[in-house]
Amino acid sequence: MSAVVDPGLERTIAAETRLSDVQGQEGKLFLAGYPAEEIAPYATFEEMLHLLWFDRLPDRAELETFSKNLARRRELPDATIELMRSAASRQIQPMDALRMGLSSLDSSDRSVDEQALSVVAKTATIVATYHRLLNAQEPVPPNQEPGHVSALLMMLEGKTPTAERVRALETYLNTVSDHGLNASTFAGRVIIATHSDLISAVTGAVGALKGPLHGGAPGPALDMVFDIETADRAEPYLREKLDHGERLMGFGHRVYKVRDPRADILGEATRRLYRSGEGDEDLYNLAVEVEAVALRLLDEYKPGRNLQTNVEYYTALLLHCLGFPVSLFTPTFAVGRVGGWIAHCREQLETGRLIRPGATYTGQDDRTWIPLDQR
Amino acid sequence: MSAVVDPGLERTIAAETRLSDVQGQEGKLFLAGYPAEEIAPYATFEEMLHLLWFDRLPDRAELETFSKNLARRRELPDATIELMRSAASRQIQPMDALRMGLSSLDSSDRSVDEQALSVVAKTATIVATYHRLLNAQEPVPPNQEPGHVSALLMMLEGKTPTAERVRALETYLNTVSDHGLNASTFAGRVIIATHSDLISAVTGAVGALKGPLHGGAPGPALDMVFDIETADRAEPYLREKLDHGERLMGFGHRVYKVRDPRADILGEATRRLYRSGEGDEDLYNLAVEVEAVALRLLDEYKPGRNLQTNVEYYTALLLHCLGFPVSLFTPTFAVGRVGGWIAHCREQLETGRLIRPGATYTGQDDRTWIPLDQR
Repeated sequence: MSAVVDPGLERTIAAETRLSDVQGQEGKLFLAGYPAEEIAPYATFEEMLHLLWFDRLPDRAELETFSKNLARRRELPDATIELMRSAASRQIQPMDALRMGLSSLDSSDRSVDEQALSVVAKTATIVATYHRLLNAQEPVPPNQEPGHVSALLMMLEGKTPTAERVRALETYLNTVSDHGLNASTFAGRVIIATHSDLISAVTGAVGALKGPLHGGAPGPALDMVFDIETADRAEPYLREKLDHGERLMGFGHRVYKVRDPRADILGEATRRLYRSGEGDEDLYNLAVEVEAVALRLLDEYKPGRNLQTNVEYYTALLLHCLGFPVSLFTPTFAVGRVGGWIAHCREQLETGRLIRPGATYTGQDDRTWIPLDQR
Repeated sequence: MSAVVDPGLERTIAAETRLSDVQGQEGKLFLAGYPAEEIAPYATFEEMLHLLWFDRLPDRAELETFSKNLARRRELPDATIELMRSAASRQIQPMDALRMGLSSLDSSDRSVDEQALSVVAKTATIVATYHRLLNAQEPVPPNQEPGHVSALLMMLEGKTPTAERVRALETYLNTVSDHGLNASTFAGRVIIATHSDLISAVTGAVGALKGPLHGGAPGPALDMVFDIETADRAEPYLREKLDHGERLMGFGHRVYKVRDPRADILGEATRRLYRSGEGDEDLYNLAVEVEAVALRLLDEYKPGRNLQTNVEYYTALLLHCLGFPVSLFTPTFAVGRVGGWIAHCREQLETGRLIRPGATYTGQDDRTWIPLDQR
């Protein structure tokens, strides 16, 4: 039984999963067996969680119980709120604050089901609470009445959101709820595989998500559209970037070799949101024109590479249309992905084992100790 | 390029490392090229850190600078102390409290070198602070004068430790400072591979270490010696366990197929400590007799398996002799292993890439969305 050397694990299958099927060559994404575009725009986030965790959509009674159990776990312990206040006073970055807040939660004596609901509920509350504190606003205490996504918007904005805003954010969170064994999801699985707890696993996943190599940060794509300002400037702006060998943010994907299916789902959700009167429709129209020019130029500069719009491009537009600043983008991604992290942890606990790879020793052999005064 | 299916990664080499060489068949452990038994009993913990992080022992001037830079990072932010107070008032488990405390630290705007020193220094302070708070004692503020291990003992006990106590604990921390790609170390590497920060990586590693499948919890071995009480009860007690197919805690190891080299290092350190007048020498003598009986019976019940004393057995005795309660055992292990976690993170940053394995999809194909009122 000889070992395979694979430092990035690109050639290693580290789990069997029923959670998502990422078909990069075909540009297809299935979430728990449903084509992403057939479920993300229709399900509530609670339905999506139930589907990921229990492998089926809930009936009405199950959904009601599930939603209630989630809603009553929204409130944060005082110690967590105090920690967020202190972090805000020191202007800690939102992803660090999210890691601090999640890790401060108590995991003792709770079942996996209870921990799962608590972590998902409180992730949204921590993100909203910290966002307000960082902007010198008092937190809006969680309300048990509405669904998870309404509650998140209420805690962020202090008012009841429109149905269009809820639907757009719900579609986004569903779309990014799971995506194979990315680095944060894998970090969570390595941690839970020791039979640790969900707080520890999700805290580790947040720590991985904040790394710049993780991917999924949509801010730069939006910056590019803002920089371009008007449609006539798109071609010279993008040509200059490509002439200098720079990447166009929001285009191309490590896994998808054709168009990222999530781009279409979010493109459509963004179009609806702007058409409903939210946000600045001129910006949306500009972004659509920039996208067309970018795709044409990418085909010209990188023929055969088939670089297409990825999930980040329309994520940035959608969240911007909701009025979210860029600092909220990655934390909001975490509010959706935490559903998948927990689903993977549950799967790992049910079907997995300890994850402990080997290493090749490349250091020196048999050195001899020399006491300090002889060095 | 076909993928290899290896869910526990037992057959996968996930990194090259110069940090430790675990030779399970030969029962040898090299730490940065030094046989563990030739360095762990002699080096200070600061020398061990310098060796792991920079691949060489420091000269006197370097050691002085390194020690000073470590010492001046011992103090915890107020927010972390408040979080520990709140956790203690809720009787949170020490490993959860350590995860909370570490994650509450700020990683913004600091270099890897500064973060590394800060995390190692503050891990000891968090462990000592929380231990005292949990036992209704006020924390002992860190002192910048002594070495790391003296400081840890002072913060735990409120008094200057004897040289024998410092040496014994230093030998223990050095011995467990690194041990290949165990699950916590690997969790840290997966997180830092996204180019996240050391706080996030070490927090994730602590989350993995607390899992019961991680191994390294020495409490049960000590419980067994206590249960046996007197040497004449060892054989009937152990025979009953073996007759019922139970494992003997403190014996056998997943990797070492002969005697765990760390058992000898810690056995010798423990012997010296008891002989110096620390602890209860009768307990030490009992433990030595229990070990002899256990090895004889394991050979009788499991012939050919060659089950030998592992690191946990003498860890338990050594820490017990120092007066540490079982609740401090795993946190103290973390105080040593954090040196290796950080060394691996540094190595991953220098030589590694994003760690992102594949998964096999085993779920359903192409399900069809059914709205709630039709379910």
